[in-house]
Amino acid sequence: MNWSHKDLLDVSQLSREDVDVVMRTAASFREINTRPVKKVPTLKGKSVVLFFAEPSTRTKTSFDIAAKRLSADTFGLAKSGSSLQKGETLKDTVLTLQAMNPDAIVIRHPSSGAADFVGKRVSCAVINAGDGWHAHPTQALLDLFTLHGVWNTLAGKTVVILGDVAHSRVARSNCRLLPMLGARVRLCAPRTLLPKDAAALDAEVFHDLDAALVGADAVMCLRLQLERQEAGLLPDLREYARRFCLTTQRLSRANPDVKVLHPGPINRGVEIASDLADAGNSLILDQVSSGVAVRMAILYLHITRKDKGE
Amino acid sequence: MNWSHKDLLDVSQLSREDVDVVMRTAASFREINTRPVKKVPTLKGKSVVLFFAEPSTRTKTSFDIAAKRLSADTFGLAKSGSSLQKGETLKDTVLTLQAMNPDAIVIRHPSSGAADFVGKRVSCAVINAGDGWHAHPTQALLDLFTLHGVWNTLAGKTVVILGDVAHSRVARSNCRLLPMLGARVRLCAPRTLLPKDAAALDAEVFHDLDAALVGADAVMCLRLQLERQEAGLLPDLREYARRFCLTTQRLSRANPDVKVLHPGPINRGVEIASDLADAGNSLILDQVSSGVAVRMAILYLHITRKDKGE
Amino acid sequence: MNWSHKDLLDVSQLSREDVDVVMRTAASFREINTRPVKKVPTLKGKSVVLFFAEPSTRTKTSFDIAAKRLSADTFGLAKSGSSLQKGETLKDTVLTLQAMNPDAIVIRHPSSGAADFVGKRVSCAVINAGDGWHAHPTQALLDLFTLHGVWNTLAGKTVVILGDVAHSRVARSNCRLLPMLGARVRLCAPRTLLPKDAAALDAEVFHDLDAALVGADAVMCLRLQLERQEAGLLPDLREYARRFCLTTQRLSRANPDVKVLHPGPINRGVEIASDLADAGNSLILDQVSSGVAVRMAILYLHITRKDKGE
Repeated sequence: MNWSHKDLLDVSQLSREDVDVVMRTAASFREINTRPVKKVPTLKGKSVVLFFAEPSTRTKTSFDIAAKRLSADTFGLAKSGSSLQKGETLKDTVLTLQAMNPDAIVIRHPSSGAADFVGKRVSCAVINAGDGWHAHPTQALLDLFTLHGVWNTLAGKTVVILGDVAHSRVARSNCRLLPMLGARVRLCAPRTLLPKDAAALDAEVFHDLDAALVGADAVMCLRLQLERQEAGLLPDLREYARRFCLTTQRLSRANPDVKVLHPGPINRGVEIASDLADAGNSLILDQVSSGVAVRMAILYLHITRKDKGE
Repeated sequence: MNWSHKDLLDVSQLSREDVDVVMRTAASFREINTRPVKKVPTLKGKSVVLFFAEPSTRTKTSFDIAAKRLSADTFGLAKSGSSLQKGETLKDTVLTLQAMNPDAIVIRHPSSGAADFVGKRVSCAVINAGDGWHAHPTQALLDLFTLHGVWNTLAGKTVVILGDVAHSRVARSNCRLLPMLGARVRLCAPRTLLPKDAAALDAEVFHDLDAALVGADAVMCLRLQLERQEAGLLPDLREYARRFCLTTQRLSRANPDVKVLHPGPINRGVEIASDLADAGNSLILDQVSSGVAVRMAILYLHITRKDKGE
Repeated sequence: MNWSHKDLLDVSQLSREDVDVVMRTAASFREINTRPVKKVPTLKGKSVVLFFAEPSTRTKTSFDIAAKRLSADTFGLAKSGSSLQKGETLKDTVLTLQAMNPDAIVIRHPSSGAADFVGKRVSCAVINAGDGWHAHPTQALLDLFTLHGVWNTLAGKTVVILGDVAHSRVARSNCRLLPMLGARVRLCAPRTLLPKDAAALDAEVFHDLDAALVGADAVMCLRLQLERQEAGLLPDLREYARRFCLTTQRLSRANPDVKVLHPGPINRGVEIASDLADAGNSLILDQVSSGVAVRMAILYLHITRKDKGE
């Protein structure tokens, strides 16, 4: 296996070979999730801390299930009810956790760079489960694993990433991962929801959805963080939906067997039409299943790697 | 065993034979809870989601203990900290959970019909742990199991259900279950706390507690939801207690070995006098113990049934 | 082993022999925490309830890890989301828990005496994880275990307890434990942060930090509860830090190999200078590691004792 990374902070650290290892490992774990007995002893006696300083159903539960199906023990730590509430610094919280000898810390945190900060200070594996607007590597890997499961190869495929690219933890990661595996990426968003450095990304930029969809093999919708609406950071939703909501009709411009992805939670009727989210070419729930397999792989690779440095 | 139900939504779905199966299965599991090693491998490798969109100590902990004593893994999901907070629909939340391949979802939800809604949308077992004012089937089954443990048969017994019948998830279930097993039911409540269709229930209605108690073999006190007081939905508490609070003195009108039940949490001095709650004929804590055994039975029957449809 | 206590409420209940048993047991469990497989089957099938009515990262996680590394199952119960929210009394909550047959209840509660109250009402073991300003016995034991691990014996050592002695759950316990093992205790605090009965404790009292440090072998810093600042219960922080913040320079008055302890969470620059907290003579993170081993020992001794009375 020969996994060389202590931490998983961002997909930018992963080589093409690393990505292949993750895909192969996730594929080998996937079938455990549909067995009558969904549990293997692989990580028995390992301790995984789930440190979620921001709310998250799917990511936390997905890691929890992934860890327990490999027989690891998990320990939840939320912001409320934690010492963070008492004004403890992130540094002291993680040094304290580290002193309890966990094998991995899975961290979701509102500050960009939090996972990197933690990884530098503890000797156990640190898995970034989303830090601010920065990175969310297991989400990008599960997108890849989902498409890989359908296509076997991404070479020559065209993938449209649609929506709030500027604030997406995943869009940037996919702009690196997808071309690495041979796919072409198109970004489609209103100007206000594109990052300033969009031109520097390995992707073609569109502001017109109909144009972006021509010849597409997959469309990854991004979530609009409606909770940011109040701060005036989002466009008018009705206007946004009129121009960028993915519908069955619009999708007819894409290639015949086009696939649709969304990281969830979905705002039906905003990013994607409700019927399309539930349609046969939607991979949204496959993404969730893939997430468990990919997180099993990531926990396994990081916890069992031979050369534990530091 | 031959259990034919995917979901447990309401006791109205259960036949007399089904109820017997639950009672026998719960009886066979009960002694596990008092062993030195309180664990059997029966559900090893099964995943049980505890989805509690409303607070509940005893029901959630009871299911959690029941699942783990059968060696299942449990995954808690509260409303706060979940995607529901981000505006996700119940449908999308449960489809997401389903995609992680749990074997059962235990759900408590403020909306009547939520468990049914979920059960129709997922292929795994759904256990209703209380949906609005609608149903709370494991509570009704544990009441039955508790009385069964004391009496061996309910035939010919008279059971008084006392208090806020209108808003009780359990009263209605017991009006079905108890007569099915041969007991007579009396409802006793002020007119304002009786449901509109009380006359249609298989029960005799009383507004005078002293009259209702004559010849009673058991009294099931119902909880007054004091949190609803502010909304003006409850009678004056002092007046209520004067007329309907069960006391040792009043209970002397009942049969000699009369039993007292309460689902908890108790409002001492409102529904039941404090000394009576702790007295020898109180089965209140037996109900809690029974609850673990009944929930072990329900989880076991629903998770291991042969014919997993859908 | 011959452990005779059902509950661990306060170190004042422990004899010298008891303390030796805890130290030896903790030492035998310590190495489990650094094994590749951090788990032994010692408490398999045991149920441990973690009832935390006050927030606490480190103590709750430490007990959770301790229990699971001994293969016990744990059940968390927080105040929010519990029946306490619905106005249930502490008595009814714990009788309910007891009826579910746990093997131990670990309780943190804002009221002094809460653990004792619970212990008297349930037949399972009750472990006090902090009750108001009263006691926090596992913290005092882990302090001892940490110093013991460094020195092998406490005989003839001088330990300074520094800071908010009046409101410390641990200072009072250490004034009993440390002299029992042959150490001398010095208390150092402003007059307003000393308890009224300080003269009656087995300790010398100082109001001048420099004087207190001369000849010291260890300094235990206490946490200043900054959340109490608003209530006007704390001195001016800048003035406090000027006089009582432990710094490398001040510590030069102590013995050459002086050790520094702090129960955490640390207010850096208030109780202790930031560089000193991270320095080579700081045992702060050893305390955290010791905590897991000591709590494994306490859970083991209380759950497996032969003579289970009551």
